[in-house]
Amino acid sequence: MLKEAVYHRPKLNWSFAYDEKTVVLRLRAKRGDAASVETKYGDKFQPFEAMRSAPMRLAYSDELFDYWEIDVQPEYRRLAYAFALTDADGETWWFSEKGFSPAAPDEHFGLFEFPFLHRSELFRPPAWVKDAVFYQIFPERFANGDPSNDPDDVLPWGEKPEWYNYFGGDLQGVMDHLDHLTELGVNAIYFTPLFQARTNHKYDTEDYLRVDRHFGDNDLLKRVVDACHARGIRVMLDAVFNHAGGTFAPFLDVVEKGADSKYADWFHVRQFPLERIDGVPTYDAFAFEQHMPKLNTANPEVQEYLLGVARYWIEEVGIDGWRLDVANEVDHAFWRRFREVVKGAKPDCYILGEMFHDAMMWLQGDQFDATMKYPFTGTVLDFVAREKLDARGFADAIQRQLASYPRQVNEAMFNLLDSHDTPRLLTICGEDARKLKLAVLFQLTFLGAPCIYYGDEVGMVGEGDPDCRRCMVWDPAAQDRELFAFYRNAIGLRRAHAALRAGSIRFLLAEPGDGRVLYERADADERFVVALNRGEAEAAFPLPELEGGRWTTAFAASGAALVAGRLTVPAYGYAVLRDAAE
Amino acid sequence: MLKEAVYHRPKLNWSFAYDEKTVVLRLRAKRGDAASVETKYGDKFQPFEAMRSAPMRLAYSDELFDYWEIDVQPEYRRLAYAFALTDADGETWWFSEKGFSPAAPDEHFGLFEFPFLHRSELFRPPAWVKDAVFYQIFPERFANGDPSNDPDDVLPWGEKPEWYNYFGGDLQGVMDHLDHLTELGVNAIYFTPLFQARTNHKYDTEDYLRVDRHFGDNDLLKRVVDACHARGIRVMLDAVFNHAGGTFAPFLDVVEKGADSKYADWFHVRQFPLERIDGVPTYDAFAFEQHMPKLNTANPEVQEYLLGVARYWIEEVGIDGWRLDVANEVDHAFWRRFREVVKGAKPDCYILGEMFHDAMMWLQGDQFDATMKYPFTGTVLDFVAREKLDARGFADAIQRQLASYPRQVNEAMFNLLDSHDTPRLLTICGEDARKLKLAVLFQLTFLGAPCIYYGDEVGMVGEGDPDCRRCMVWDPAAQDRELFAFYRNAIGLRRAHAALRAGSIRFLLAEPGDGRVLYERADADERFVVALNRGEAEAAFPLPELEGGRWTTAFAASGAALVAGRLTVPAYGYAVLRDAAE
Repeated sequence: MLKEAVYHRPKLNWSFAYDEKTVVLRLRAKRGDAASVETKYGDKFQPFEAMRSAPMRLAYSDELFDYWEIDVQPEYRRLAYAFALTDADGETWWFSEKGFSPAAPDEHFGLFEFPFLHRSELFRPPAWVKDAVFYQIFPERFANGDPSNDPDDVLPWGEKPEWYNYFGGDLQGVMDHLDHLTELGVNAIYFTPLFQARTNHKYDTEDYLRVDRHFGDNDLLKRVVDACHARGIRVMLDAVFNHAGGTFAPFLDVVEKGADSKYADWFHVRQFPLERIDGVPTYDAFAFEQHMPKLNTANPEVQEYLLGVARYWIEEVGIDGWRLDVANEVDHAFWRRFREVVKGAKPDCYILGEMFHDAMMWLQGDQFDATMKYPFTGTVLDFVAREKLDARGFADAIQRQLASYPRQVNEAMFNLLDSHDTPRLLTICGEDARKLKLAVLFQLTFLGAPCIYYGDEVGMVGEGDPDCRRCMVWDPAAQDRELFAFYRNAIGLRRAHAALRAGSIRFLLAEPGDGRVLYERADADERFVVALNRGEAEAAFPLPELEGGRWTTAFAASGAALVAGRLTVPAYGYAVLRDAAE
Repeated sequence: MLKEAVYHRPKLNWSFAYDEKTVVLRLRAKRGDAASVETKYGDKFQPFEAMRSAPMRLAYSDELFDYWEIDVQPEYRRLAYAFALTDADGETWWFSEKGFSPAAPDEHFGLFEFPFLHRSELFRPPAWVKDAVFYQIFPERFANGDPSNDPDDVLPWGEKPEWYNYFGGDLQGVMDHLDHLTELGVNAIYFTPLFQARTNHKYDTEDYLRVDRHFGDNDLLKRVVDACHARGIRVMLDAVFNHAGGTFAPFLDVVEKGADSKYADWFHVRQFPLERIDGVPTYDAFAFEQHMPKLNTANPEVQEYLLGVARYWIEEVGIDGWRLDVANEVDHAFWRRFREVVKGAKPDCYILGEMFHDAMMWLQGDQFDATMKYPFTGTVLDFVAREKLDARGFADAIQRQLASYPRQVNEAMFNLLDSHDTPRLLTICGEDARKLKLAVLFQLTFLGAPCIYYGDEVGMVGEGDPDCRRCMVWDPAAQDRELFAFYRNAIGLRRAHAALRAGSIRFLLAEPGDGRVLYERADADERFVVALNRGEAEAAFPLPELEGGRWTTAFAASGAALVAGRLTVPAYGYAVLRDAAE
């Protein structure tokens, strides 16, 4: 037993309440080291003899580690516990807060504890997120439904996007194309910023309480949200609270009056006057962007202002989620207040942090419901598109990510493959639609809410910003309708089967040096296996785990075949099998 | 390099702000594995070429691991970083959020991040705690200064304590004996509960706003606190907020009216009426104590009530600290509000949680300042008294504890050796005062606030509760005055030298199978080494590290000798040497 590899520290992703009765415990050990792991657990105020034992299951594995898991239900909500790891030779080591011992514990003192399961602390992301398929809209480039509100210097739809040009996209355009979303099958929209600002991307907010005049007005947004709701589509807006825009009135006041401004403490000013010296503003900013001054979210006035904004759009317009820009550079205390206000206004409002990194410290139930899962993005693209990972490396990375969060977080994560900040998926895939489909199929048969970047579904391409922000292609002749059908069908498959959304996941095949991945998604009602062939040649998938099932093809690439229990999948193809016996 | 042993995850004890400019980074590796470790760090919005490198220092080691540490000062408060571990053969592995790589990173993406150093989040326990020496008073047994308020069935002072008997100790008794505390040299008192209750220990609160009638009244407490403050002694009270007493009026109302009581939601009732079935109350309680009903701290009325209590004793009486009973079974959200209220009323009020376990999740700056460090207690007693640990095991356990918390937490920890809940220190030491002195000397030359349980300083003995709650011995002839002098001198030594309080600590000698421990305490101004000889025979201490210093004996057991650079210490003896060259 490699003791140095064994890890458990109560709370975070290692012990957490999943529902009002259940605490999930996880233990990490060196990959392959433990043949079995057992948990001894009980109430520390009952006699030690009342402690119970139960086997843990091997939930995940990554390159270095196995992650063992168990669900326990402490009768009085208090839990003391220890682990027993047994290797292939039958040698057992006990692991508790005191460390390792060959002997079983004989007293509560020194055990790990989950001190009390508080219902008030139970972390329940909105239930609808598990079932959501998001569609990301960059409003300036989606559709121009009202030329009367276009900027003066608007260019013809479809010309080359640059950092500072405009094409006239607006909310009326979104309203006009809701049928497209319904046909695609998505049931949630993520809008990048809609509020009054100077740029085409609107991340430099001038007025947090007003829809940008080139997009429409507050009333139109309300009508769009109502129309979405009537179709069963939820709406998430972008909260840019880390920083304001350079034309935000309080900032202009500080620019003008310096330290005498009543807003001087709304920002992080290092030195007055506000200026830029050697490329660095004399105040904190997003990056070193002088037009994006960082807000002082520790200032109570700023808090009240921004929390009022958060509440306003929920109460006045009825939005269903807030996506938080640059979320990790804002203080935790602000996000805790934000959560109280938002959930107070709408208990099932989704709170989604932009976060490019491990986000555990924001995902304990007191701050965000989920984050944009960029590590997921990287892993999928490294496997499917960039081919930096083989099947084993892919499965390892995905499982490492799953093990790093509580289960309910994984179920609510925002899984994207591209966005307005990255090259387009099809471009990353070398314009090989087969690879795009592999990535999207994985996204749509994985835990967490998938998000599709507008236009990907009709074959749009584009390099990084600004090229990824091209105008939406609406001419059917210029759209890839076969690709659209794939998206629609894959989304339909996900939406029809809960097991593909929140079921368990288990990798059945993922070998080093191989491009074949086979995994199972299952819940109490249904069982699926998904085969991905990231390879230049048709591949056969051994299905040893599938004996006993009555497998049928639920969804597959053209040329995939399941014949007499033998599955073959074409190059860069896929197949989703369903156990019809259940 | 044993990759499975390497650990770092941003925040908690692994990366934390220590002051407004400094972020401390820690990295764990297998003990002895890395010959050197380097950190590469910088601002993610500056060009990658601007990243800097600096060596980490080996701060702590335990049985399995080394802990490397570095202080960095990010110019714009944002920090991206990676580590390079080099083994004895010169092989280097880079470690970042992405995992291990033989190649140095060449982009910010995938590095670890400490996203932003918020001044508002800076965790600063009260500065005075670093310099405090606490004295714990169990009021019913300290001194009877006012026989007029004695319970009816009071017993003569000094008889055998039982769970339910009374001796008449009170606040006037404390007032009368403040000279004893001043002579001893302590500068803070921790009072176990003082509020109106039915038991002698008062952990079953009846009235949170009234001093128990057998102890005096609120006005007398204020006079005691004022008298303490006049002597430079701070006062901490016990907040029993996990549960109330069985005679707490809201609880009695629920007992009477059941679900119709307006206080029904103040508790965690599983089933009405409130009763006890097979020894288990039908409501949540401390343990299964029917007279200690658990309070529902998620109920806003309960919150307002308890937070009002917390504020009342600060504002009306001027207390300096709250010790939180059964702190880990109360929800985090309540403790966050508690901190806001308490720090709002008195910014340097000490918030101390009772916690028998790893307490990292409560020690991030948003809840407690420190916890009662029972793992410290166990380690010191296992080494000095129970002799379950050798010198190496002792040093390993102490360093493991230090590595498990941020530095400012270690400086503010409440280090106790016994209490009203444990046998007395001298009894645990087999009534061998030499062993007690070894333990106390370590306590008084270690980081964190030491606490002395009343009477230990005059040689009181006692087994576990109730025997450890004997009446204080005030007859000088019955006191061990030599022991008192030891305590007074050791406390005086600590109070005279900041290096012994908040200086760095480094173990210089702690070998397997040995009883000799030698460690250094140092700050910018002074340097000490402390030698502990836990052995039946006189022992010599090799002092290779001490060359260059002009060492003098600052404090030592009778018989210890420093002659020509050679230190000998008698059986179960100690010596504190000071470098007079600095």
